[in-house]
Amino acid sequence: MILILKPELDSESEDRVLDRLHELGINAQIVRTSGRAVVILKSDVSEEPNHRFTQIEGVVKAVRLSPGYSLASSIKNKSIAIVASAAGYSQKQSLIGSGHMPLVMAGPCAVESAEQILEVAAAVKDAGASVLRAGAFKPRTSPYEFQGLGEEGLEYLKEASKQTGLPIVTEVLSPDKVETVAEFADILQIGTRNMYNYELLREAGRLGRPVLLKRGMSATIDELLYAAEYVLKEGNEQVILCERGIRTFESRMRNTLDLSAVPLLKSLSGLPVVVDPSHATGLRAMVRPMARAAIACGADGLLLEVHDRPEQSISDAEQAIDPGELASVVKDMVSIVLALGLGAGSGDSEESTVEENALGAVAPCASVRTLSESI
Amino acid sequence: MILILKPELDSESEDRVLDRLHELGINAQIVRTSGRAVVILKSDVSEEPNHRFTQIEGVVKAVRLSPGYSLASSIKNKSIAIVASAAGYSQKQSLIGSGHMPLVMAGPCAVESAEQILEVAAAVKDAGASVLRAGAFKPRTSPYEFQGLGEEGLEYLKEASKQTGLPIVTEVLSPDKVETVAEFADILQIGTRNMYNYELLREAGRLGRPVLLKRGMSATIDELLYAAEYVLKEGNEQVILCERGIRTFESRMRNTLDLSAVPLLKSLSGLPVVVDPSHATGLRAMVRPMARAAIACGADGLLLEVHDRPEQSISDAEQAIDPGELASVVKDMVSIVLALGLGAGSGDSEESTVEENALGAVAPCASVRTLSESI
Amino acid sequence: MILILKPELDSESEDRVLDRLHELGINAQIVRTSGRAVVILKSDVSEEPNHRFTQIEGVVKAVRLSPGYSLASSIKNKSIAIVASAAGYSQKQSLIGSGHMPLVMAGPCAVESAEQILEVAAAVKDAGASVLRAGAFKPRTSPYEFQGLGEEGLEYLKEASKQTGLPIVTEVLSPDKVETVAEFADILQIGTRNMYNYELLREAGRLGRPVLLKRGMSATIDELLYAAEYVLKEGNEQVILCERGIRTFESRMRNTLDLSAVPLLKSLSGLPVVVDPSHATGLRAMVRPMARAAIACGADGLLLEVHDRPEQSISDAEQAIDPGELASVVKDMVSIVLALGLGAGSGDSEESTVEENALGAVAPCASVRTLSESI
Amino acid sequence: MILILKPELDSESEDRVLDRLHELGINAQIVRTSGRAVVILKSDVSEEPNHRFTQIEGVVKAVRLSPGYSLASSIKNKSIAIVASAAGYSQKQSLIGSGHMPLVMAGPCAVESAEQILEVAAAVKDAGASVLRAGAFKPRTSPYEFQGLGEEGLEYLKEASKQTGLPIVTEVLSPDKVETVAEFADILQIGTRNMYNYELLREAGRLGRPVLLKRGMSATIDELLYAAEYVLKEGNEQVILCERGIRTFESRMRNTLDLSAVPLLKSLSGLPVVVDPSHATGLRAMVRPMARAAIACGADGLLLEVHDRPEQSISDAEQAIDPGELASVVKDMVSIVLALGLGAGSGDSEESTVEENALGAVAPCASVRTLSESI
Repeated sequence: MILILKPELDSESEDRVLDRLHELGINAQIVRTSGRAVVILKSDVSEEPNHRFTQIEGVVKAVRLSPGYSLASSIKNKSIAIVASAAGYSQKQSLIGSGHMPLVMAGPCAVESAEQILEVAAAVKDAGASVLRAGAFKPRTSPYEFQGLGEEGLEYLKEASKQTGLPIVTEVLSPDKVETVAEFADILQIGTRNMYNYELLREAGRLGRPVLLKRGMSATIDELLYAAEYVLKEGNEQVILCERGIRTFESRMRNTLDLSAVPLLKSLSGLPVVVDPSHATGLRAMVRPMARAAIACGADGLLLEVHDRPEQSISDAEQAIDPGELASVVKDMVSIVLALGLGAGSGDSEESTVEENALGAVAPCASVRTLSESI
Repeated sequence: MILILKPELDSESEDRVLDRLHELGINAQIVRTSGRAVVILKSDVSEEPNHRFTQIEGVVKAVRLSPGYSLASSIKNKSIAIVASAAGYSQKQSLIGSGHMPLVMAGPCAVESAEQILEVAAAVKDAGASVLRAGAFKPRTSPYEFQGLGEEGLEYLKEASKQTGLPIVTEVLSPDKVETVAEFADILQIGTRNMYNYELLREAGRLGRPVLLKRGMSATIDELLYAAEYVLKEGNEQVILCERGIRTFESRMRNTLDLSAVPLLKSLSGLPVVVDPSHATGLRAMVRPMARAAIACGADGLLLEVHDRPEQSISDAEQAIDPGELASVVKDMVSIVLALGLGAGSGDSEESTVEENALGAVAPCASVRTLSESI
Repeated sequence: MILILKPELDSESEDRVLDRLHELGINAQIVRTSGRAVVILKSDVSEEPNHRFTQIEGVVKAVRLSPGYSLASSIKNKSIAIVASAAGYSQKQSLIGSGHMPLVMAGPCAVESAEQILEVAAAVKDAGASVLRAGAFKPRTSPYEFQGLGEEGLEYLKEASKQTGLPIVTEVLSPDKVETVAEFADILQIGTRNMYNYELLREAGRLGRPVLLKRGMSATIDELLYAAEYVLKEGNEQVILCERGIRTFESRMRNTLDLSAVPLLKSLSGLPVVVDPSHATGLRAMVRPMARAAIACGADGLLLEVHDRPEQSISDAEQAIDPGELASVVKDMVSIVLALGLGAGSGDSEESTVEENALGAVAPCASVRTLSESI
Repeated sequence: MILILKPELDSESEDRVLDRLHELGINAQIVRTSGRAVVILKSDVSEEPNHRFTQIEGVVKAVRLSPGYSLASSIKNKSIAIVASAAGYSQKQSLIGSGHMPLVMAGPCAVESAEQILEVAAAVKDAGASVLRAGAFKPRTSPYEFQGLGEEGLEYLKEASKQTGLPIVTEVLSPDKVETVAEFADILQIGTRNMYNYELLREAGRLGRPVLLKRGMSATIDELLYAAEYVLKEGNEQVILCERGIRTFESRMRNTLDLSAVPLLKSLSGLPVVVDPSHATGLRAMVRPMARAAIACGADGLLLEVHDRPEQSISDAEQAIDPGELASVVKDMVSIVLALGLGAGSGDSEESTVEENALGAVAPCASVRTLSESI
């Protein structure tokens, strides 16, 4: 870390800065540049917050040389096995991450009834999805909106998983529900509104189940990785990051899908990154083109809202596609992966060959590899 | 509500829209304008979400005529009594809201030790603060930062309240901690990262204790009022709204303080609105000018970070002011209230005269009153 | 258009609204919905600004049923011929837009010398680019930065065009320079800082030369189309829209590339849409993945910063790729177009077959077609 | 400036960085910190752009120690004399800036007719305004909106200035119109859409007339100061900065007024800063509270939209206040200045006493003074 000092600080004040650092057990050196003095910290302070230093009298800015999420940034080419264990299956159904065909997680916004979720589960499986997604607990802006079926919804999801063999991803809203949801879910989803809910992140970390972590609607890339760090720090490395659109001034779509987050995240951490074009755009007709773009820039998977009768959905119907459109998206995805030559075996994958997913091992885009160095 | 239909929809499709509305029990009428048809809903659908209507085939947009937070918008000129009851006091210490001198809540970012919080509590009381604020549970971007003293910190806060008589406001981070925190806190703070934590809002609502609800860092004004609606719907009308800066592209300050939120919120709801210039700007030297501005545009109170030795604070030291600067802010506040003639008794206050706060009843800015009509 | 009236307006006030509209020559009708009155304007007011109506006493909001850029929204599947006419060529070199292989415009940020631009021009042509881009007049945040070679730079560009046959796109900064620049440029670029420079837009419109219109860094999609409308209104239909990133809170990249703008713009207007991943991300390693994504979601072309020796460029070197990387991007582009089956003849193209570009006619993504109806 | 190098760079690569700097004539030193090397530039590179350094192989980031707008940051406590010289007056009418009562510039959005502007001019003068503002050239999002009366409007403004003695501020849209507009205007306004129009800034700088420079709708504070630097660099120090709201996700107001920009700008430069609450909020009822707030946090003036019959204005009527409300705003302003003890003579003012404006010299807020050091 480097500390920039106030302009024209006298030498006594400079000494006081060094003394204070010494008290904190930090080895430091003052270097002079044109008209300004800076302090170079020789000790490793990567886990210290910036304000520990900026509060020292005479310091105006602390420049961090490497990000503070040391676990997230040290993970390389992670791949995660997804198993429908909640429904009693024991073999891994799919692998997500480095070297694997992108994974499709699809399903309705909310579980509405047993019949609905069983029908949709069968339909998304037929269309090529590998994981069933649906909400039993729904966070809603208005207290008057449908808040989900709760545990009843979780039971229906388990039944759908039993019948189809599809693993389940569903959202958990508070720390005290993590264990309950984990009895039914194979991937715990931390939603965009909860990305800063650190107690929830810790609980999800402790449980050791794969976690799908959605970027907060106005979270920076660094904050998303710090959120992942909370899970990782509990010893759980099974974190899937999800870009789902950020809040900007543009109002024609619900959010602005930040696809550049995909190569950027992959350059900063080896965790898998998936994209949710449904929530990002909020418009059915945008889902397919943005899903294509997500795959083309290197996403490890897609999270898609699918309803068998979108017009009768009780939540977020504007963005749900039908199973036929899902099949088209899956077909596009495979075409793009093949076209870009991503299907070949790759030294990046942890295992030399994988056949779990539709097409086997894929190599990440070469040009992304050089990104981490330039940031 | 008004539904805008697709251009050039045929009459059969129009009929299907009306039929679908009829099935939903909604009375509606089609009206034609230049080249377009719109549907006017005659029934009250104020508590129905927009997508209930936009998912109907042929509907492209739903225009809501009044906001969906009916409780928040029906509250008029609310004032809330603040009592240090957790520490055993029974008389109301202060009133916040319509017709009252703005209330100052001040204290350190985090409780660091018993000595520190007792010293700061005494100092902020002397400087003119009416409520002591400090965090025992601290949400932090990085898992490696100080996360607060937890329940030990709450005990120290109670002791500080006993010694000074100051009521306590402190943050609660998860629904299962609401009861515990409420044993020590006179106002429950819902922080910016938890504004969308609906289960936490509900729990805080059920308890019936005053709630300080901070605006999410990228929450719209409407979303803040919907969050308040969650608390109100549980029967708890004691909600204090807090503007604390929003996230924008400007990076010189931590956030962009949106002071126009103050008159805007007051035009949409009668709930008290306070401003936190410390977290908004993140810079000590900005606190006083922005506190002045907040009072000038009608804030009902200030939330200020104060530390007796800012340079030794273990969190957020860059923005903490010292007790001397707090006294100056309080003096400024009183000067502005008097200068703008806000001190006179007002028909808006629930009680004709109040002496609980420093200067008694104040009248809200007249020009703000007309705002609600123009929005 | 629909006008929403104040709640609880009396009937006399309602009549005054109607009278005022009558004075303005507008036929209108009042309709009542639950607790509120709205006015339906029967006359076509698509070219009237909203405030003409919101300033009427009693009106709180004006809801527009269709956007005010009638020319832009009526254009269907536009394709534009690009000819290197400034350098004396008379045959069209390329076609951009509906039904054509995406067009690659590449070159350095700035013309630095005759040698440099001739070398880069040859290199980008070899790598598969169809248009040479480079700036002679450079708008710079700081007055101390290199501002471009000016007319000298234009001369060098013309020479490069003569030698390679590549048409030229270059930026024009002010209305009085439009004619001069047009003597050297085959496509006039209106940069992001000038999207709201209406006099410049008008001048570019009058000249009748193809215009590359870059989205303002914080312009909405509607504002971009209004800017295009200024050009179109002068009788010039040759407008190419360009997404180049918008300003958000995320600071790791220069801007946030809004790829959803591509299908969205194409649903609202038939004008061609290109993407500039170089300026959007500001990072060399991001260019290739984001170029892939742009093509996958339907972009009609790419604008790429290419330098033969990126490390010695005098401007924006961090984002320039070298000619080898450009060749890879072009290869990816062709692969994606073929993989998604975009190469087949399409009823959308104005001509049944085209061979001008590398691969001939391409069909736009089917799912985008339905978007315009849902917005 | 400090350059941060790639992690684990070998010593040969480090040497190449130093060699390259040496070629550029820059003296530099490598210093090692925990696991990373940084280069300290000893030479003054304050006018070199960052990318000159980040393009060097091995450099990942350049950290600037002081901003690049050296003229703007070296100006101290500037005050500017405003004279109605276009209308033939020779004595200074007002002073704006350090040590002076805030200046009120008021008038309609657009000049609509001779009668209208003469009436409004008289009315705003009576209400306490010191400068008349109105647009003759109006930049409009839509080409179908009223674009202003042009030079005819300028003539009417001059006549209004003659009759009232009020100096005129009006907008100039392109470099070739600067001279023309300057024949009629005493302050040249550069509007928000033109803040990045560098040729216009240069022209306005060359002319030497006071310039009112509005912040771009998504410009950072640094970009605004760089824009000012363009004017200053031409030898014109008479620049008045104007905060007028920035574009954010919040849509209930036209823009988000960033009042923290006032103390921030004043800490970075001594140029006067005024606030435009009319355009920022777009809502009449918000003007008065936000004007109060602007003055309270240290603004040197207000730019207010005033119309004698707001409901009949042909542009931006929703935000125009009437002359009565203007008088209230002026009264509030004086009250706040007196209440905060800003009226006392101050060592900061360039002249010990001034009586030109309503109340004479005022002292800036003491706490702002310390800000520059902490940034």
